[in-house]
Amino acid sequence: MNRTMNAVFSKLLQAQNILVCGHIMPDGDCVSSVVSLSMGLEKLGKKTTMAIDWKIPSIFSPFPRVERIIDYSRYSTQLENSDLLVIVDASSPDRIGRFERLLRYGMPSILIDHHATNTRFANLCWVEPSYSSTAQMIFDLLKLMEVSYDGDLALMNYLGIATDTGFFRYSNTNSTVFEAAAELVKLGADPCMVATAILETRRLEEFFLERDAIDNLRLLSNDRFAYSYLRVEDFERYSLGEDDFGGFVGDLRSIASVEVALFASESVGGEAHVSLRSKSYFDVSSVAVAFGGGGHPRAAGFTLKYDGDLEEALQEAVELISRRLESHSKDATL
Amino acid sequence: MNRTMNAVFSKLLQAQNILVCGHIMPDGDCVSSVVSLSMGLEKLGKKTTMAIDWKIPSIFSPFPRVERIIDYSRYSTQLENSDLLVIVDASSPDRIGRFERLLRYGMPSILIDHHATNTRFANLCWVEPSYSSTAQMIFDLLKLMEVSYDGDLALMNYLGIATDTGFFRYSNTNSTVFEAAAELVKLGADPCMVATAILETRRLEEFFLERDAIDNLRLLSNDRFAYSYLRVEDFERYSLGEDDFGGFVGDLRSIASVEVALFASESVGGEAHVSLRSKSYFDVSSVAVAFGGGGHPRAAGFTLKYDGDLEEALQEAVELISRRLESHSKDATL
Repeated sequence: MNRTMNAVFSKLLQAQNILVCGHIMPDGDCVSSVVSLSMGLEKLGKKTTMAIDWKIPSIFSPFPRVERIIDYSRYSTQLENSDLLVIVDASSPDRIGRFERLLRYGMPSILIDHHATNTRFANLCWVEPSYSSTAQMIFDLLKLMEVSYDGDLALMNYLGIATDTGFFRYSNTNSTVFEAAAELVKLGADPCMVATAILETRRLEEFFLERDAIDNLRLLSNDRFAYSYLRVEDFERYSLGEDDFGGFVGDLRSIASVEVALFASESVGGEAHVSLRSKSYFDVSSVAVAFGGGGHPRAAGFTLKYDGDLEEALQEAVELISRRLESHSKDATL
Repeated sequence: MNRTMNAVFSKLLQAQNILVCGHIMPDGDCVSSVVSLSMGLEKLGKKTTMAIDWKIPSIFSPFPRVERIIDYSRYSTQLENSDLLVIVDASSPDRIGRFERLLRYGMPSILIDHHATNTRFANLCWVEPSYSSTAQMIFDLLKLMEVSYDGDLALMNYLGIATDTGFFRYSNTNSTVFEAAAELVKLGADPCMVATAILETRRLEEFFLERDAIDNLRLLSNDRFAYSYLRVEDFERYSLGEDDFGGFVGDLRSIASVEVALFASESVGGEAHVSLRSKSYFDVSSVAVAFGGGGHPRAAGFTLKYDGDLEEALQEAVELISRRLESHSKDATL
């Protein structure tokens, strides 16, 4: 039995009004963790509020209770009087966006996260990088709390486990992941519904963006490093936003020779979100941290701010990755 | 306990020299089923020969024992004297290619398959469409036979379950699939190795082919039907074969509005392999059967032979699908 998980259990039991907060640029694990923790706590008679300082991507709209997540426009001083703030899946305080101010009011706070780069910024931090996903931590926590699952809760809890393991493809996919998935499917989660909602709701225009991203594709370091980017005008040409084009960094990594992939999406002029992936030995989280971001050894990211052109601005990161790749033999851990 | 599985068990126990035969255009489930059945039987002291009348795609070369699969050039009359022929994952006799002649020599034959369109062409047919994959049937069979798994066998058995469920994304992904995966991972299968070997060994040129396939993309029937194709000269331009470009039909289906996707790869002039996928209600196996192929309701295929141009030749299938889509309301089962 995990002692920190037990401490989290006790704190949650004592509280009545609980604010559950996820991170900016919410992914499947974030939405899953926020909603399934809220659902589970409400089954135990708690009152919860879910908060994320970001527009929830439309791929999550088919999922239950997602529409009840409030954004920062719904901030009120009432939130500051919650019994407990629970932050999920966020590795540093800036990741919760403007809701970060909630940390200033002396409200007790709990952090539940699986990112190794977590800066442990709450009163009680349950940070466990051996977990595939924060959603899998929530699953173990809710089981410990003897929450009775229904189909909606099982579905919402499954969502984060599936998405954060890349649908059971990444190196964090161990036997406990499959066991959790089996249990959640028995409890009513529909794997095909989740995969279809997340992966099979692309717009035709994304294919045209993909064509542009292929045009920008570069291979460096003996083809071990692939990068590409899209500028804000590329997105505008097809009336798409960067949230509509998330998977390309994984496509870059799928090239046989590639160890490191980088993809940059310019969100507005002078600002881009940079995603990093690696295949087997390169620690991309250290690169992300060097540029003010965070993540995992095989999947990380950061926000780049710059004057001038995106491709030029990327060169510092591109050169850092190339240098590290070239100064190490293929078998050394970077 | 399944009675047919028990009968298969008895027949296998009685035989000494067993010929295990997979199908042409072998996919992950075929290679997995052939190799894991052979490995399991050898652990029980049997002598096995593995046969597939097709060049094994290079994505399978990192996997154990795959190099021991013989092709038709290694045909010998000795094969006709095996005690038992076991055919796996093949829905009709033509699917085993030129090894079909083995059915003529009076050798006892067993068929293990999960395709609903199976024509039951062996002496003993264990055909169970409720299974996700033939590999999952092999897993249950080898457990019944009390085969002791090592890491290589677990890996090879996992391969087919993972690939035939689209890495746990298709509608055949139920809790037994996740339970089997969990057991196989505990026995030594590495999910990330399988995903990397199968999905992340693309060549750069495949991205360029993808760009061409996007240029050929058409949407019909109120955007519910997407199709595309590549001609033999497209493949030749990048020195690629159709085996190097397998996933695009799934990409077509991933468009939100799309229910049916069709992708045709011209292998030589006048012959193309046509892949069909559907998302939630259209039975593509009936279309495939109408053109002499087979498969599942959500994934099927056929070979098209024609004079003249590929795009023209495709129109009969394209019109059949469009007509069926348009003559039914979205909610009716087709």
